[in-house]
Amino acid sequence: MSDLSPPAAAADQQAAATALQSPFLKSLVSLVRAQDRFGIWEKRDEAELLADFIVDREQRKLIPIIGDPDPDVLSRVEWFYGAVGLQVESRTGIMASPIMQMSHEGFGRMVVTAGRLVVINKHLRDLHRFGFLSLGALAEEGAKVVDDAVSWIEKYPDVAGE
Amino acid sequence: MSDLSPPAAAADQQAAATALQSPFLKSLVSLVRAQDRFGIWEKRDEAELLADFIVDREQRKLIPIIGDPDPDVLSRVEWFYGAVGLQVESRTGIMASPIMQMSHEGFGRMVVTAGRLVVINKHLRDLHRFGFLSLGALAEEGAKVVDDAVSWIEKYPDVAGE
Repeated sequence: MSDLSPPAAAADQQAAATALQSPFLKSLVSLVRAQDRFGIWEKRDEAELLADFIVDREQRKLIPIIGDPDPDVLSRVEWFYGAVGLQVESRTGIMASPIMQMSHEGFGRMVVTAGRLVVINKHLRDLHRFGFLSLGALAEEGAKVVDDAVSWIEKYPDVAGE
Repeated sequence: MSDLSPPAAAADQQAAATALQSPFLKSLVSLVRAQDRFGIWEKRDEAELLADFIVDREQRKLIPIIGDPDPDVLSRVEWFYGAVGLQVESRTGIMASPIMQMSHEGFGRMVVTAGRLVVINKHLRDLHRFGFLSLGALAEEGAKVVDDAVSWIEKYPDVAGE
């Protein structure tokens, strides 16, 4: 039985390492690092910097969805869509800027614009629980959102160029 | 000398009365009234409801532009662009939704979207001093912003219809 699959933990580590090489997570790490004005996180590796983006099913259940979300959660939402913007720009050459408005109790709206085009228009809810099951899932969701935004630019390049 | 122009005060009142009949100010009044959940402003007339939108040159100078603007000012900015949205919808049949993000100290960004089209994209500054010299100036500026938004929809109707 030498061809057994490796233990789950090793497979998870391998998946995380692959995810960290993805362009989306590289952009996300660069935004998180940019906030570290005093070098407090200098010694943290990429996985540590993104650790708060990972919320497993058990943790998720424990987060109350009452009141306004923690400002740190909102920062992570902004970094996520900021990284989407950076990736859109790197793929299309057109700058994409996120704008977020929270209304109340974890509800809000996120819009990313490129020129006169809305490339992302998302109504947010339960932001208290914003997070992903793994670095792989985070990378995958980021790439999906970027693909969607880029497809709008491909559909209406003249509007994105306004 | 019977054909002298009427005194300035009477002319101002006439101009204000005309402005209050404009579709933009009617939308704006409806939004302000909608916030009055407890009927506190029930007896105020339209000019009174819009009084805080009027900031003359002397008052303007007295408003410090340090720190974050008063939340009441931000509400007025939101109502202004909310009224723009209502007017855009009444003229084109397409819903237009404002989204505002304040960054710091009176700087921010206002975007109004219609479908996948950005009909207004405005960088805001010195919001502490948001206001207009008269009801006429407020109505005029509102109409100008609405015209501009509508012209984007006329240019890209398919994007606005997405």
